[in-house]
Amino acid sequence: MLKQPSSQYRGFRTPGIRLSEEMLPQLTKLSTGRTRPMLHVLHAFDKAHAVMLVEEGLLARDAGIAILQALRQMEKDGVEEVRTRTGGGLHSGEQYLIRALGEEVGGRLHVARSSGDLSSVGINVLQREHLLAVLQAVNRLRRVLLDLGRGHTDTIMPGYSFAQHAQPMTFAHLLLSWATTLARDFDRLHGAFRRVNQSAAGAAIMVGSDFPVNRARTAELLGFDGVHENAADAILELTADDSLDVSAVLAVLYHSMAKWADDLILFSTSEFHFFDIPDRFCNTSSIMMQKKNVIGPAEVKGAAAEALGCVVTSYHALKGPTGLPITERYYALEMMWRVAQNCVRDLGWFCELLPALQVRREHMREAAWRHWATATDLAGALVRERDLPWRTAHQIVGILVRLCEERGLGPADVTPALLDEAAGAYHGRPAGLDAAAIRQALDPARFIAARTLHGGPAPAESLRQADLFARGLADDERTVAAIEARLAEAARKLEAAIDSLIG
Amino acid sequence: MLKQPSSQYRGFRTPGIRLSEEMLPQLTKLSTGRTRPMLHVLHAFDKAHAVMLVEEGLLARDAGIAILQALRQMEKDGVEEVRTRTGGGLHSGEQYLIRALGEEVGGRLHVARSSGDLSSVGINVLQREHLLAVLQAVNRLRRVLLDLGRGHTDTIMPGYSFAQHAQPMTFAHLLLSWATTLARDFDRLHGAFRRVNQSAAGAAIMVGSDFPVNRARTAELLGFDGVHENAADAILELTADDSLDVSAVLAVLYHSMAKWADDLILFSTSEFHFFDIPDRFCNTSSIMMQKKNVIGPAEVKGAAAEALGCVVTSYHALKGPTGLPITERYYALEMMWRVAQNCVRDLGWFCELLPALQVRREHMREAAWRHWATATDLAGALVRERDLPWRTAHQIVGILVRLCEERGLGPADVTPALLDEAAGAYHGRPAGLDAAAIRQALDPARFIAARTLHGGPAPAESLRQADLFARGLADDERTVAAIEARLAEAARKLEAAIDSLIG
Amino acid sequence: MLKQPSSQYRGFRTPGIRLSEEMLPQLTKLSTGRTRPMLHVLHAFDKAHAVMLVEEGLLARDAGIAILQALRQMEKDGVEEVRTRTGGGLHSGEQYLIRALGEEVGGRLHVARSSGDLSSVGINVLQREHLLAVLQAVNRLRRVLLDLGRGHTDTIMPGYSFAQHAQPMTFAHLLLSWATTLARDFDRLHGAFRRVNQSAAGAAIMVGSDFPVNRARTAELLGFDGVHENAADAILELTADDSLDVSAVLAVLYHSMAKWADDLILFSTSEFHFFDIPDRFCNTSSIMMQKKNVIGPAEVKGAAAEALGCVVTSYHALKGPTGLPITERYYALEMMWRVAQNCVRDLGWFCELLPALQVRREHMREAAWRHWATATDLAGALVRERDLPWRTAHQIVGILVRLCEERGLGPADVTPALLDEAAGAYHGRPAGLDAAAIRQALDPARFIAARTLHGGPAPAESLRQADLFARGLADDERTVAAIEARLAEAARKLEAAIDSLIG
Amino acid sequence: MLKQPSSQYRGFRTPGIRLSEEMLPQLTKLSTGRTRPMLHVLHAFDKAHAVMLVEEGLLARDAGIAILQALRQMEKDGVEEVRTRTGGGLHSGEQYLIRALGEEVGGRLHVARSSGDLSSVGINVLQREHLLAVLQAVNRLRRVLLDLGRGHTDTIMPGYSFAQHAQPMTFAHLLLSWATTLARDFDRLHGAFRRVNQSAAGAAIMVGSDFPVNRARTAELLGFDGVHENAADAILELTADDSLDVSAVLAVLYHSMAKWADDLILFSTSEFHFFDIPDRFCNTSSIMMQKKNVIGPAEVKGAAAEALGCVVTSYHALKGPTGLPITERYYALEMMWRVAQNCVRDLGWFCELLPALQVRREHMREAAWRHWATATDLAGALVRERDLPWRTAHQIVGILVRLCEERGLGPADVTPALLDEAAGAYHGRPAGLDAAAIRQALDPARFIAARTLHGGPAPAESLRQADLFARGLADDERTVAAIEARLAEAARKLEAAIDSLIG
Repeated sequence: MLKQPSSQYRGFRTPGIRLSEEMLPQLTKLSTGRTRPMLHVLHAFDKAHAVMLVEEGLLARDAGIAILQALRQMEKDGVEEVRTRTGGGLHSGEQYLIRALGEEVGGRLHVARSSGDLSSVGINVLQREHLLAVLQAVNRLRRVLLDLGRGHTDTIMPGYSFAQHAQPMTFAHLLLSWATTLARDFDRLHGAFRRVNQSAAGAAIMVGSDFPVNRARTAELLGFDGVHENAADAILELTADDSLDVSAVLAVLYHSMAKWADDLILFSTSEFHFFDIPDRFCNTSSIMMQKKNVIGPAEVKGAAAEALGCVVTSYHALKGPTGLPITERYYALEMMWRVAQNCVRDLGWFCELLPALQVRREHMREAAWRHWATATDLAGALVRERDLPWRTAHQIVGILVRLCEERGLGPADVTPALLDEAAGAYHGRPAGLDAAAIRQALDPARFIAARTLHGGPAPAESLRQADLFARGLADDERTVAAIEARLAEAARKLEAAIDSLIG
Repeated sequence: MLKQPSSQYRGFRTPGIRLSEEMLPQLTKLSTGRTRPMLHVLHAFDKAHAVMLVEEGLLARDAGIAILQALRQMEKDGVEEVRTRTGGGLHSGEQYLIRALGEEVGGRLHVARSSGDLSSVGINVLQREHLLAVLQAVNRLRRVLLDLGRGHTDTIMPGYSFAQHAQPMTFAHLLLSWATTLARDFDRLHGAFRRVNQSAAGAAIMVGSDFPVNRARTAELLGFDGVHENAADAILELTADDSLDVSAVLAVLYHSMAKWADDLILFSTSEFHFFDIPDRFCNTSSIMMQKKNVIGPAEVKGAAAEALGCVVTSYHALKGPTGLPITERYYALEMMWRVAQNCVRDLGWFCELLPALQVRREHMREAAWRHWATATDLAGALVRERDLPWRTAHQIVGILVRLCEERGLGPADVTPALLDEAAGAYHGRPAGLDAAAIRQALDPARFIAARTLHGGPAPAESLRQADLFARGLADDERTVAAIEARLAEAARKLEAAIDSLIG
Repeated sequence: MLKQPSSQYRGFRTPGIRLSEEMLPQLTKLSTGRTRPMLHVLHAFDKAHAVMLVEEGLLARDAGIAILQALRQMEKDGVEEVRTRTGGGLHSGEQYLIRALGEEVGGRLHVARSSGDLSSVGINVLQREHLLAVLQAVNRLRRVLLDLGRGHTDTIMPGYSFAQHAQPMTFAHLLLSWATTLARDFDRLHGAFRRVNQSAAGAAIMVGSDFPVNRARTAELLGFDGVHENAADAILELTADDSLDVSAVLAVLYHSMAKWADDLILFSTSEFHFFDIPDRFCNTSSIMMQKKNVIGPAEVKGAAAEALGCVVTSYHALKGPTGLPITERYYALEMMWRVAQNCVRDLGWFCELLPALQVRREHMREAAWRHWATATDLAGALVRERDLPWRTAHQIVGILVRLCEERGLGPADVTPALLDEAAGAYHGRPAGLDAAAIRQALDPARFIAARTLHGGPAPAESLRQADLFARGLADDERTVAAIEARLAEAARKLEAAIDSLIG
Repeated sequence: MLKQPSSQYRGFRTPGIRLSEEMLPQLTKLSTGRTRPMLHVLHAFDKAHAVMLVEEGLLARDAGIAILQALRQMEKDGVEEVRTRTGGGLHSGEQYLIRALGEEVGGRLHVARSSGDLSSVGINVLQREHLLAVLQAVNRLRRVLLDLGRGHTDTIMPGYSFAQHAQPMTFAHLLLSWATTLARDFDRLHGAFRRVNQSAAGAAIMVGSDFPVNRARTAELLGFDGVHENAADAILELTADDSLDVSAVLAVLYHSMAKWADDLILFSTSEFHFFDIPDRFCNTSSIMMQKKNVIGPAEVKGAAAEALGCVVTSYHALKGPTGLPITERYYALEMMWRVAQNCVRDLGWFCELLPALQVRREHMREAAWRHWATATDLAGALVRERDLPWRTAHQIVGILVRLCEERGLGPADVTPALLDEAAGAYHGRPAGLDAAAIRQALDPARFIAARTLHGGPAPAESLRQADLFARGLADDERTVAAIEARLAEAARKLEAAIDSLIG
């Protein structure tokens, strides 16, 4: 007889049944290793499936109770440990039950499902867990940014474009722009969450089974928002868009984080020196003891590169006809779990680092006009006070800047005569601004104060934005709280259903 | 005097003003070439900006009228042609106006904006236009899939996993799974559309200007859904997530399309031969005249590779501190315009190709059980009729398949005796199913008919799904129609505002 | 006093020296974790550096002997274990020595080098080790392919293009084409090996030190082929091309392997069924017991996706100004070590799998003409025997194939009358080939036998190729053997130098 | 009769022959568009093939002469124009000849080859041409770097690591490191050139033909270095490694160029300000007239992103079983042609820009010690003069730097007392260096002068490196010259062979 003694049951692929050789140990090891992160999900699925089978009369009540009691027992000994010890993998539950209860009982768990829905449920719940953790961390950082921004509405600094001094802005303005980016990230991540949190349970390998399962019930017990309406669509082996989706939204988020990390590194160089980074984020050198290597933000940038690598790996691994790339998928997923964990880590570092930055306000403000960043408003003054066309005023100030550079002069050295010289060179007429008007036009504080337009960096407008963004954040925090509540409720329902069965 | 004669005005970067050398011609050419696809958007922005300036008293009414009349005149001569002739680029409007009206009037257009919001408006409107075209094309294909699916609920075919015959499904079931994927694509694309269709106008380079512009008005006239609330966030040079977002959702859509193209190619090989592809999608060889090379789907697959390349190029080009990568962005955008256009093209090909497929129903149905795809339900029969545990039944049928393969037998050759032999080998007891039960269990038509579960391929359930998905599609079609109406209304408002000014 | 008691020395970054805070434990953990794979290399470098310092008079002989004896002692206790216990990281050697010998002696090791050359030596030796293992594995597979090919010169099979039956080839012809690809891979990998196996030792952080070190000596003791001639170029933090190079050549190799894996999977489907894959490379399903999922080749394809992801991660992580991305590099390297290990694994699987394939010769040969793959030579016969222009002959046979398809006929059904009908339809004249000529033209064995041209699949020509490629392989095997000998000799020299010092 | 009148011949795929429908015009257009860049190559192949056929007796002398004369005539009218007008594509030669000479003669050209070798020859010659142009441009830049480097051996500047001031180096040292990187790029590019410059001519679609062609002769006339020894390997549709290889080596080169572009941008910011970039490489802003946007290097960075995108597109497009992805390949190739052209463009810009940089020597030299970059050598002085262990000296100077930072002091403010204080804090003993020793230790000129080690930045050592690298460059220039000569000789041979035939 080919039947294995239940107490030593090693799974359904033993040689002599369908296949005649043992699988190469290295291949077995690879495949069980991959399901390790989802063992707790498989456990919950085993429980929910057993409950549903009993409720629908597809599993005798006695057998169902024995199975559920055994699974409860497994929890006492540690789900991960017991399942790993029992061979690991998608079918570690069945394997444990057959060993514990015999094939006659334990062999009844797997009716009406397949490795297809097992792995889809496992992957989707893991994606859901990771996305939820990222959503929480994104919201935490948004709150940090808004709080910090409110305190920096008068921290004037240069804004750059093409790495050139462009115009003054405030640190608040920059932080608020980061907060709006994160609001879009929340939108993207939550969109992915909604699309991912659908139940494949009961879809088996792509067409379900001919047993009358209750897919809605299993979905409810596992905390899914709904049931995939088409069983082929439910099986991730067939439709690959979910994983691409998740890896893409993580990568987009990481791209912004890496950009901010680049800003922090650049702004903390000796040359820019807007910030000092707290020493706990820094390392030094084994020979250049003067160095303060900024490490934390560099980790963010490295992890962002892996996030892009994950998108490419996912896209490439999943290429091929429907249902062909399956094993390949795990090369992408293992990278994705890492990326998602790093993402929570790195969002956390921003939360810790940003409020701890030592901001060198005086230096930043001085930098905000030292390299002509306020020159635009000198042209603006010519438009307003002398009714020059914008382009005329712009060209005159352009000549002024060139003349000053040639003569080694800076913005503080601009006189009415110099400006007249530039205007004269342009169109043969003087500019006609007095010294006070020039000084005022070039003053960065006035520059900021005058930017009261919708979206501008004037302090009151920044506070308006902060309030608006805080309301959006509060909405998103409620969204996250509702998800958390829904998942907790599902977990409670599952245990209650088991309790009511096993008495 | 450095001022250029207005009639020969060549732009504000002429040597002698701010800079002392002419820019290298090759660099100039690169930069003007890039704005070519957005000249019509810049034109609309020029008009809307002029209207708003006049309405807000920032531009004298007379000058405003002259400017708007000149822009209307340009339309008669062809916006693209005139702007390209006038030097092209972001400032082709100003350049044209200065030449036509003199710097005294034409030089007043550019007040209170910058290249920053010009290019952000240009890029976002182009992204909006491309996304809208893709949304429309996605919906067209969804409708084709649902219509086609309704006619194929009894076209039975093998479903594959690991490239192995897994279980029977129907062509309708497959087409419906594609339709659900496209519904998710619609969700993703529309999310990106919402995030992208925000107005940067008035945000200038990152902090706006000190002129009291009315950003909401310009946004309304340009068909935007809203105004970026933070001016730094408005400028795409600073926040790169938009472009990554758009290229990512296009790539995810393309991945699925490529997978379906792979299916069509595989299923039309001599070996599978489920479909014949119409000759208009095929080429032949200069020496192997028997060949019918399937070209259309191969184009989809090639374009999908470029879509992934576009994600990587975008992500990489935009890496760097805030405001540093700007020129780099265009290398990604030019690829993105191509990808989006190909995407509409390829969605269109599916719309044409799928209904024209010659579906070889008899062959497909025969294939659906010839390689044991219905074996699962023989185990199911043992469970139901002999109360065997699933695992026991599964192993017995596993042995049966192996025995048949060793003896050169197929599913049609299975007898009660053979099944009993397998059961005996497993656990020393016969299986006890009669010939009729075996034949019925292995029949693919019965297999499909029994899959009435939620999400299954039974014909009635497929029709339920088709109806459900059609309702979702109708919603999404209304969403698209509303966008189209909003954009048309904005265009009307803009022209009406100009009419009321120029009388 | 800030000096730590030597016995508890925890490294040079302790708070109170240069920096005032302890580094975040998570950051410390990340950085030490990364150097784990290179601890044995750092150990060798510590020894070689100490030897060189003593030889050059830069380290007192007594101190040198104490250091070298302590390092020898460490080997007894296990280099990896002791270094990990001592804090891990680049400076685990120094840390161990200071604890063991006091700062007065142990603190003298690090003179004239830096973390820069430590990590460059570590990385380059690891790249060298991985590349060497891949070179060895590539050669093993080449030998397998040549041996196998020699036995399959008369295993006729269809060749495909566009997934269509193109022309007959032989399995030998296919295997030999794989062998030539691998010869190019060897060339690429060896090129990378040569470029990588250069010594950074003594280059410190980019300019070396002002101590008169002997870089050539250290390089010799560490088995390098030479010394980086420019110290900035030596430090991988500055010049990133090496890692890109290595990841790219691995990815190119993996691309071909994935293609072959795709072939194996396709050719083992029920539809193609040219091969049976041994069961030890296969899995089955928990519900579809008939399935024989081919797992091994799928692993190759997944790993290939990661290899591409590694290229992208490397390229992206290393972007930025000279000397800026450093930490980021490790995200790429950790992926690269994995890719290289998988590469050796997967080359090994091909070596095991290919000779074990059950090749279905009869079926393959039948397939080689059943779908008109020999039709080209019917046109050839018309050219040769009837002096038709190629194009005329090609079009006539094209018509013939279409007529046959329309009438449900295959190649075996072609008669002189049918061919005449096609020729008549084309140009109003009969073709004039008799039945024997037609039969012969369409025979796949004759088809192959006639391909005696340079590069063709005729058996004798295949054997010529196999011999030629075997000579190339023998050369490359000698190259690998020479590398192995050189590295062994360097290791011997290092130990001899230590022996001669410590007596 | 289906035969087209020769004068209106439109190719072999006309409906009614093999296929019954016209191909969709959009598909036709796509496919002919792709061969446009290779029309001149196809022309040369047509000529060489005709010569070889006549020489081998496979084409009657009269017909051969007529064909060659017609092809010569085409050259008078413009190969590109005539071929494009005649339908374009791989078979534009045959099409032209049939129209010009009738099918009876023109229809004889295509014997013994196929679209497979046509496209492989076309692609490989294009890859060869692009690689050659890049090799030439790489060498030009190497020469510029060496010449420029020789003049900057005493231009001292800070070297950075982690964006921190690490140690002084010289501009020469940096330029020489770039030159060595380019030498490796030459090696990689030349390796790819060698692997690519092999002839597929005669390999037809994968097995050649049964006509006794002389492949060596065609290869010789087309300037190939050899003949692919295996006909399947010759056809790029089957073996994809070539294109991956070429795109990878281009991307690796681009990565370095982008890094240098980043350096130039960073070093020309107001904050670093080591260089002024000539105005012809710069743009300014439409509102921020002070800005000098550095454009040229930004183009390099954008093109580098596309180079990475090309690697990914290539890798992804070519994934799939042997002979399946063919059309897909062109999506990768069109990107590759663009990348290669940009590469030559951007190498050229470096050649123009680098010698034109305005180098601010005084400022750079001052920066080279202002932020403690020479501190390492103060520790070195303690080692040498006070026999302190390196680690002890390092920690003492670490304390010194911290004390100075806390007290607002810089390197110029270090006194013996301060150093003693630091030493005392560390181990309770004074340091004992006098003021002169300290001053000297911290002097950047002395720092550089002392780096005479192999690979160091001391001026004489830099000159030694420059000489060494110049010798390597001269070798590589000879390699390029030899390639150019070989190709010119092949072109001469081809024309001579034609001349001797047509008399």
